[in-house]
Amino acid sequence: MDPKAFRDVDPGQRTLMGPGPSDMPPRVLQAMAAPTIGHLDPRFLALMDETQVLLRYVFQTANEFTIPVSGTGSAGMETCFVNLVEPGDEVVVGVNGVFGTRMSDIVGRLGGRLVKVEAEWGRAIDPEAVRKAVAGRKPKLIAVVHAETSTGACTPLGDMARIAADAGALFLADTVTSLGGMPVAVDATGLDAVYSGTQKCLSCPPGLAPISFSPKALAALDARKAPVVSWYLDMGLVRQYWGAERKYHHTAPINMIYALREALRIIAEEGIEARWARHRLNHRALVAGLETMGLSMLVPERERLPMLNAVRIPDGADDKKVRAALLGDFGIEIGAGLGPLAGKVWRVGLMGHAACRRNVTLFLAALETILRAEGVKVNPGGLEAAAAAYGPKTG
Amino acid sequence: MDPKAFRDVDPGQRTLMGPGPSDMPPRVLQAMAAPTIGHLDPRFLALMDETQVLLRYVFQTANEFTIPVSGTGSAGMETCFVNLVEPGDEVVVGVNGVFGTRMSDIVGRLGGRLVKVEAEWGRAIDPEAVRKAVAGRKPKLIAVVHAETSTGACTPLGDMARIAADAGALFLADTVTSLGGMPVAVDATGLDAVYSGTQKCLSCPPGLAPISFSPKALAALDARKAPVVSWYLDMGLVRQYWGAERKYHHTAPINMIYALREALRIIAEEGIEARWARHRLNHRALVAGLETMGLSMLVPERERLPMLNAVRIPDGADDKKVRAALLGDFGIEIGAGLGPLAGKVWRVGLMGHAACRRNVTLFLAALETILRAEGVKVNPGGLEAAAAAYGPKTG
Repeated sequence: MDPKAFRDVDPGQRTLMGPGPSDMPPRVLQAMAAPTIGHLDPRFLALMDETQVLLRYVFQTANEFTIPVSGTGSAGMETCFVNLVEPGDEVVVGVNGVFGTRMSDIVGRLGGRLVKVEAEWGRAIDPEAVRKAVAGRKPKLIAVVHAETSTGACTPLGDMARIAADAGALFLADTVTSLGGMPVAVDATGLDAVYSGTQKCLSCPPGLAPISFSPKALAALDARKAPVVSWYLDMGLVRQYWGAERKYHHTAPINMIYALREALRIIAEEGIEARWARHRLNHRALVAGLETMGLSMLVPERERLPMLNAVRIPDGADDKKVRAALLGDFGIEIGAGLGPLAGKVWRVGLMGHAACRRNVTLFLAALETILRAEGVKVNPGGLEAAAAAYGPKTG
Repeated sequence: MDPKAFRDVDPGQRTLMGPGPSDMPPRVLQAMAAPTIGHLDPRFLALMDETQVLLRYVFQTANEFTIPVSGTGSAGMETCFVNLVEPGDEVVVGVNGVFGTRMSDIVGRLGGRLVKVEAEWGRAIDPEAVRKAVAGRKPKLIAVVHAETSTGACTPLGDMARIAADAGALFLADTVTSLGGMPVAVDATGLDAVYSGTQKCLSCPPGLAPISFSPKALAALDARKAPVVSWYLDMGLVRQYWGAERKYHHTAPINMIYALREALRIIAEEGIEARWARHRLNHRALVAGLETMGLSMLVPERERLPMLNAVRIPDGADDKKVRAALLGDFGIEIGAGLGPLAGKVWRVGLMGHAACRRNVTLFLAALETILRAEGVKVNPGGLEAAAAAYGPKTG
């Protein structure tokens, strides 16, 4: 083995406007590089407590059991299902993209009885369809994706929380992409279980999955007949490490938790409401620019997420060539379409730290330049329309 | 939420001589703080490939499927069992400490038929006992812990690999604590599946679990009748991201992989054989010092690990008080005893970057100081004995 074959890590400087990871504030990367200490060190235990306080703020919850799971957002999804679903349990899942599909897959692996409520990719799940699916059943759990990262569609949670409560079911939402970028009011909405990821609107590197369980969800966990099939994600055990017992379960990802705490502290400094407003503002500017240029959005206006913008690839544009030019010539990463949307849309993220006027302006300018060079017709005025959305003062 | 309630992350500077995490080389922390880029960025894909090359070097294997799982070492354990065990499969597990016990727990959750081969905590698993347990059975898998972190006992793998091969079983070893600190020769030994953690002798922060599967293990995975119950840890899917397909599965923990690649590069620079020798040397010096002081080791000499040293708590010493003084007055973390060894041993780690003369000397000097202050009898000459172990030149 010749160690000289391996150079220093040098990923360069990208502008991350895809479906995540998003750009990080430098402070988060600095905090992550603080010296590693032990997972039972009193100083680390204090940092864990503070991380929980800050997570509760971002989730808008008083739930005691609010922690980061030691895995990426997908591990958060699996954590919720593996703890709350037992073989034979009936589970209603809203499917309108990749992540609802993944939920269904997991329910199947766990031996749950799956009831799918589908919507077209790019549209929200209709609460009425959920109500009909639930009628005459006794589901243990109803699960939907708040922010479908694969399409940019937002499914409002309020009506479904009421349907779940009426049915005596637990209500679970995927907030991987929404948390920190738009309201996720766990308690006010009536969410029993919720999971997220760190690399979207929290602007922290990928590797942790914040979750929160209501007392009702914890009671369901305590009342299980079958053991949780995953030891690693058994929240009955993990609770004893994050709670007062401090009982060793697995070695926490120490430095990732430094990073998350710093990312959450930055959110507290900005204020969560101001952060939501910043995401909306930059989203409006981006859409104004794109629509003025003649491009169209996949998702109807009322169902659009602010932080994940799926724009239809215009006629004559070569999907891969345009994305390669954005990355190669401008250092901008955006996302490709997935599944039935592959080759049909681009996914433009405005997440957390990356939801800023500089990124919106750079992206619109770069896209216009590339499309024109490719001979694709672009209407003039995109940058001006975006600027107008910000108003006379900078946003 | 008052953000001023939260100060900068400042864990201070510990000397990590517990069961892990271990001290990190500053280069690893710096690499981890490089800017985050996308999990499908060509630059990141190149770093993934290099990480695999370096992991194969450390595991001493040509196994193509050699990757870091996106979770801590315990996720590595779960990954091996959840992919290789189906309900009803017979699984032989060696149990001589916390981690063999955990393996048994996981086999039970997965519906495997568990055959335990036990040994006293602090002793190796006896290959003859495994041979007897296997006789007349057709186990799918035989699993042992190479380096039992809870006791400091080393179970040699060669004989058991032959027993497994003769029985037509897959052979799995936990090398969480051994990898990078003593030989783990996956191919030469005949290991079919192996997992580790990053925070022990690799000296990288916790958060990833390197694993390697032999072609025979992959064939067993491909031949499964039941789906893998975990979506997150389904290596049939994860392979398509780490392999040529580059198919998105979950967002990789980008910065953790920067850190691991740097930690592995440092191992390649030192040379794996030199690293093993360094661990042996520092272990010998530590034991010489402790035994001269009048303390005794839990594990018989021939079964001792170099990187995890369980020393009996001497009469008259207060376990918690001594550990608190080590941490508070000297900044040294060591580990407590677990399970039946709680209050009976201290676990002193000499792992990776932390296996050095400075740490051995500081620990012996600090322990002697504390024990004397507590009125515990300590023989003179510990430091001299350690110095003699290093020989006339520094080690």
